[in-house]
Amino acid sequence: MKKLINDVDNVLNESLKGFEAAHGDLVKINLDPKYVVRASSPVKGKVALISGGGSGHEPLHAGFVGTGMLDAACPGEVFTSPTPDQMLAAAEVVDGGAGVLFIVKNYSGDVMNFEMAAEMFEGEHASIITDDDVAVEDSLYTQGRRGVAATVIVEKIVGAAAEQKADLASLKALGDKVNRNSGTMGVALTSCTVPAAGKPTFDLAADKMEMGVGIHGEPGRRTVDLMSADDIAEEIIGAIVKDLETTKGDDVLLMINGMGGTPLMELYLMFDAAKRQCDDKGLNITRSLVGNYCTSLDMAGCSITLTRMDAEMTSLWDAPVKTAALNWG
Amino acid sequence: MKKLINDVDNVLNESLKGFEAAHGDLVKINLDPKYVVRASSPVKGKVALISGGGSGHEPLHAGFVGTGMLDAACPGEVFTSPTPDQMLAAAEVVDGGAGVLFIVKNYSGDVMNFEMAAEMFEGEHASIITDDDVAVEDSLYTQGRRGVAATVIVEKIVGAAAEQKADLASLKALGDKVNRNSGTMGVALTSCTVPAAGKPTFDLAADKMEMGVGIHGEPGRRTVDLMSADDIAEEIIGAIVKDLETTKGDDVLLMINGMGGTPLMELYLMFDAAKRQCDDKGLNITRSLVGNYCTSLDMAGCSITLTRMDAEMTSLWDAPVKTAALNWG
Repeated sequence: MKKLINDVDNVLNESLKGFEAAHGDLVKINLDPKYVVRASSPVKGKVALISGGGSGHEPLHAGFVGTGMLDAACPGEVFTSPTPDQMLAAAEVVDGGAGVLFIVKNYSGDVMNFEMAAEMFEGEHASIITDDDVAVEDSLYTQGRRGVAATVIVEKIVGAAAEQKADLASLKALGDKVNRNSGTMGVALTSCTVPAAGKPTFDLAADKMEMGVGIHGEPGRRTVDLMSADDIAEEIIGAIVKDLETTKGDDVLLMINGMGGTPLMELYLMFDAAKRQCDDKGLNITRSLVGNYCTSLDMAGCSITLTRMDAEMTSLWDAPVKTAALNWG
Repeated sequence: MKKLINDVDNVLNESLKGFEAAHGDLVKINLDPKYVVRASSPVKGKVALISGGGSGHEPLHAGFVGTGMLDAACPGEVFTSPTPDQMLAAAEVVDGGAGVLFIVKNYSGDVMNFEMAAEMFEGEHASIITDDDVAVEDSLYTQGRRGVAATVIVEKIVGAAAEQKADLASLKALGDKVNRNSGTMGVALTSCTVPAAGKPTFDLAADKMEMGVGIHGEPGRRTVDLMSADDIAEEIIGAIVKDLETTKGDDVLLMINGMGGTPLMELYLMFDAAKRQCDDKGLNITRSLVGNYCTSLDMAGCSITLTRMDAEMTSLWDAPVKTAALNWG
C-alpha cells in the first residue's frame, strides 16, 4: 500500500490536526469525541447545520465548515459511520438557540446514529437525508438510494439560507427540495484502498471500469469495458435526466466530481463531454462545479451530478461562502 | 491506460473547452493558438502577467488566470513547452500599456520559447524564471534547478502587486525575491502516465518511492524504500531549510501540494507532519496552502514548499484573488 501516512491507526487524527493547523481561522477541532466546528460557534439566532459520515471523502464534510455552509462536521473513521456521541457533542457546541438541522447521507449506519443523536439532543431539530445516487436501489451499506455528491449542493444552498436566518422548517423543506431535484451517478476506473485494510477494496481488471460505483467502492450497475468520456457522459446524463424527468429549458447546475485519484485535466474534459449531452437534452447549464469534493480516497473516476435549479436555489448558491473547500462572494 | 478521455489527440482541446464552459465568468479561451486570458482583458494601466508551460500540471496555470493573479496562461501539449506564437498572441491580447511580465518555470524549452516570444513582442517586458526545486541541480529537461510549486506563490504575490498597479521593474524584483525565498522538494509514490504515451513514464516497484521527483516524473535524488510521512517531512523540510538558510523565528508559508493522485486526507496529514518539522526548526507558519495546485497528471505523491515571508509578501498573499483555483478576499 502506497500512502503518505505514519501509523494506519493515526491517519484520521493526524489528518484532522493538519486540517486545523492549516485552517485555524475557519474551524476548531475536538479530538475526543471528534468534531470540527466553525471557529465562531455558536452563531446566536441561526439554525446550526451539522453533517458527518465516514472519513475518506474529503473535503466532505470538514472542508465545508464555515460561514455560509456547515456549523459542524462529525468525521467517523475511514468509511465508518460517526457515533451518536460525536453528533450530540457537536450539536451542543453549535446550537445557537434556533435549532439544529442534521444533513445525513443515506447509509444505514449514518442514518441510525444521527437518529440516536437527534433523540438525545434536547433542542429543536430536524434532519435531511440525501439520496441522490440514481445508479442503484439498495446497496452494500444502505437501503434505498445512496447519498453522494449532491450532498455538497444541499449543504451549500441550505447553508446560505441558514446564514440569512431562515427558520428550521423552511431549511428542512429547502434541503429536501434540493435533494429531490438532484441526481448523481459515478464511475470508477480503479478501486480505492482503505489504509487499515492495506489492499484495494475491490478488483477491477486493467480493461474494465465500474459504472454506477458507490463512494466506498460498492458495486454499481455493472462492470464494463473501458468507455470513452463521451460514452460515459451519455450513459450517466441519460440516467439522471430519466430519473429527474427534466424537460427542455430546465436550468441545471452541472457538477463534475473527482473521486480523488483523477487529475483536473480529465475532470474538465468530462465537463465538456457532459455539457454536450446537456445541450442535446435542451438543458441550460446555469451554474457549475468541477473538482474533488466528494471523494473515495484514491479512487480514479468521477461522478456527474445535475441539480435542477430555480431562482431561489440559484441565488442561494451564489451567496457568499467561506470554507476550506468552497470560498466565494 | 485508464483515463477519462476520448481521443488522446484531443485531450488538451476538450479539457480547455470544459474549462471555459465552467469558468466563462473568469476567462476567455482561444484554441488556435492556445491561450487562456482574463475575461476582462486587457486591464488598462496594469502590468499584464503571463505564464505557461506544458499541460498536465492543472490547475497550473489556467486555474490561476483572473483578478489578482495572471492575465494569461499559455498551455502546451502535455509535458511539452508552449510555442512562442502562443505567448506572443497572448501578450498582444492582455497588454494594457504598462508592460508584460512573463513568469516562466525553469525548463530549457519553456525558457527558450518565452525568450523568443519576448524578443518578438514590441511592448515593454521582463521575465521571472522560477527555480525553487532544491532536489537536484540540472535535470532531464533543464539546466539549473527546476521551477515547480512555488511558481503558484510567485504568481499570487506578484499578481496582487500588479493589481495594485505596481510597475514592471518593481514586479520583476518582487517575483525574484519570492522565488529566492522559496524552496520545494517532491516525492512520488507512483509514476504518472502521459495520455499520448499510454504507459507509465517511469518504473517504481510496489515498495519504492522517488525522493526529489520532478513534476514530469524526472528522476529525483534517489529511489528509496517507502518512508513514513514523518520521515518524508523530515528529509524534505531539512533540505529546504538548508537551502534557504532559514533562522529561528522566520515567518514561513507552508504549502503541501498534491501531485494529482493523492487524496486530501493524506495531504492534511503531511501538513501535520511538516508543521512538526517546522516547529522543531523554530519556523513560524504564518500562512498555508494545501491541495492540488502544481500536479503531475495522476502521479501519487506530494511536494512541500516553504516560502520565507515578510510583511509585504504576507499582505500581498492575503490580497483578494478570484480565479478558478484560488479565490478569497
